[in-house]
Amino acid sequence: MSAESTTVNYPEEFKGFAVSDPKEWSNPKLISFSPKKFDDEKDSYVHIEVETNGICGSDLFVIKNEWSHNEMTWKKGSYSPKGQIVGHEIVGRVKYASPLAQKNGYNIGDRVGVGAQCNACLDCEQCNNHREQYCSKSNGTYNSIYPDGYVSQGGYASHVSCTTHMCFKLNDIKLESKYISPLLCAGLTVFSPILRGIQGALADKRTPKVAIIGIGGLGHLAVLLAKAKGCEVTAISRGYSKKEDATKMGADDFIAMSDENTDWSKYNRQFDLILNCAASTTSLDFSKLLPSLNVQSNFVSVGIPEKNEVLKLYPVQFLRNGCGISASLLGSKDEAYELLKLADEKNIKPWIEEIPICSEGVHKGVQRLSDGDVRYRFVLTDYHKFFGTGK
Amino acid sequence: MSAESTTVNYPEEFKGFAVSDPKEWSNPKLISFSPKKFDDEKDSYVHIEVETNGICGSDLFVIKNEWSHNEMTWKKGSYSPKGQIVGHEIVGRVKYASPLAQKNGYNIGDRVGVGAQCNACLDCEQCNNHREQYCSKSNGTYNSIYPDGYVSQGGYASHVSCTTHMCFKLNDIKLESKYISPLLCAGLTVFSPILRGIQGALADKRTPKVAIIGIGGLGHLAVLLAKAKGCEVTAISRGYSKKEDATKMGADDFIAMSDENTDWSKYNRQFDLILNCAASTTSLDFSKLLPSLNVQSNFVSVGIPEKNEVLKLYPVQFLRNGCGISASLLGSKDEAYELLKLADEKNIKPWIEEIPICSEGVHKGVQRLSDGDVRYRFVLTDYHKFFGTGK
Repeated sequence: MSAESTTVNYPEEFKGFAVSDPKEWSNPKLISFSPKKFDDEKDSYVHIEVETNGICGSDLFVIKNEWSHNEMTWKKGSYSPKGQIVGHEIVGRVKYASPLAQKNGYNIGDRVGVGAQCNACLDCEQCNNHREQYCSKSNGTYNSIYPDGYVSQGGYASHVSCTTHMCFKLNDIKLESKYISPLLCAGLTVFSPILRGIQGALADKRTPKVAIIGIGGLGHLAVLLAKAKGCEVTAISRGYSKKEDATKMGADDFIAMSDENTDWSKYNRQFDLILNCAASTTSLDFSKLLPSLNVQSNFVSVGIPEKNEVLKLYPVQFLRNGCGISASLLGSKDEAYELLKLADEKNIKPWIEEIPICSEGVHKGVQRLSDGDVRYRFVLTDYHKFFGTGK
Repeated sequence: MSAESTTVNYPEEFKGFAVSDPKEWSNPKLISFSPKKFDDEKDSYVHIEVETNGICGSDLFVIKNEWSHNEMTWKKGSYSPKGQIVGHEIVGRVKYASPLAQKNGYNIGDRVGVGAQCNACLDCEQCNNHREQYCSKSNGTYNSIYPDGYVSQGGYASHVSCTTHMCFKLNDIKLESKYISPLLCAGLTVFSPILRGIQGALADKRTPKVAIIGIGGLGHLAVLLAKAKGCEVTAISRGYSKKEDATKMGADDFIAMSDENTDWSKYNRQFDLILNCAASTTSLDFSKLLPSLNVQSNFVSVGIPEKNEVLKLYPVQFLRNGCGISASLLGSKDEAYELLKLADEKNIKPWIEEIPICSEGVHKGVQRLSDGDVRYRFVLTDYHKFFGTGK
């Protein structure tokens, strides 16, 4: 440990690992910062003392500034830190709850979780119909500007402050925090389209058949969760290197896309859902995938493609089975609670590698994730020890 | 009338207008032919004496042989005619009903209708779940080879023989046959995706908003039927030439795609369904259309694109609202009956131009449809007069 002081002078300051220059993305620096100001009379909000936080591919996109053609968002901020703290798979304890938050059932000491979305208006068509993830007034847990000019800050930090609107209560969940973290963004992101994709099969009283493309951070959770929902799961990967792991996760079948001997005809109209967990769609062979979809079923992407990626399709391929392609963004509050209950009941443990939080740990986590050297999710731990919190 | 004998020697022969060479597509020739042989002990089938038949774009694809890289299908036929009779918007009366057909409630003199699909296995996953249009053992009303080698023949003919599986009973329908004909293929093709596309809005207890691209044979029915289902309808056309008609059909709003002054921002997340009734998708600007879709809503194509048409998409455009693109093929038996009931109750009259059937009439119909000179659907009529039937 360096001479840098890691102890936090709460509640005036939070501390966290920030990137201020995309060139320095792999070396987030420990900084002290002021939390977002909420209004105790109007806002239902909490301060969360972080315990664990998963490292997500989105973190890389933001600290490398790859999603935007502009400068990093923090430069547009007002009283927020001069840099960006990422992390949106946050589990921790409520350290402060505003009067409205207490009225909403959030109390000091409660274990809570926050995923990639930390706010929603609760008053639009989407919020009123349980699709808060598409609320156009929502805020992302980091890299998102509030009306007061503050840029939201994530979970590579001692504390996080946010409204309770998308803050999930975990008091009834027995699963350890380190296993809950990856469920909050990656897990929910794959769970939402699985729930929707298997409705038709369940209505037909069949076992749903789901194919998962890309066995990584998102995909391995998709295999675990689809199995937990009773699906027959086919894992699809480039080669065979992940076959053994996929089988251990519960996959019933495995396809290596690069294997030219694969007999795709046996998959004709088989899948009620093909969930694409790979970031890119351009390397996929849709002439094989689309006929493998059951009638009126969908190929759904959850990975976030590069801004300029172009996909070429033959419209005539959609007609024979009335299939579709679409995308899915995060999940709703209801779906998050359903996921947490399922994971707890079935004791679902994401395949994680723990990294105690510190400058070197954060560096190692983002660098190895960028190198693809992760099986299958990093979770930052030991927050109390590092920040002197948890007392 | 020429010296050609038009009287039919039923039941030994049927007569109809056939194309044997794609070069002669615009001049179907009157021929005499043997009907498909069914088994009176096993098959529930009927002979229908045709009254009216709509002219559909699919008819052109088949007689011009544009859907296939091979020779015309009739050349592979056994005892079927040496040429192809098209037409799959058939309304007529039962002239013969097999014992099983009678058991199923089809009796001589009953008015019945047949659309683009004339058969289904009734025993597969799709048939068992009310999606007969995707039955992989089904037959098209024309240009489709039966197991016994007969190539199915359509409604530009005195009679049609087919199973009762997709033959709709019309005794309870008051609408005139000429108005029912276009509903059986074009109407059902647009009605099926409308029914599915508006489910979400109805679940949210909102008035569904539907956009219809391409105000032609399919599109004009989509406007009429979406209005009949209580939707708010936006008609989308290339220019403004069809604006007046679209308004008369009931469209609440109109967008000319070629008008660069259109303010697309006001359509952001507006449509619960964009139904593409144009054959091609390549000329459409998806950067405008996809953001106009409501959350988790779909752009659905019902036109049949050319075999080699390529569509370029930016996957990132799907993510913000979780939208999708898909295709839809015909409709189910249940949907057909729902459509017929709705059309009858609301007295929906497709905008048709009647053409009395004869060599010159058939020629004029297919030629003008090919030239785009139709507003909005041709229906062949006066069958009894021409063929000496109806007695």
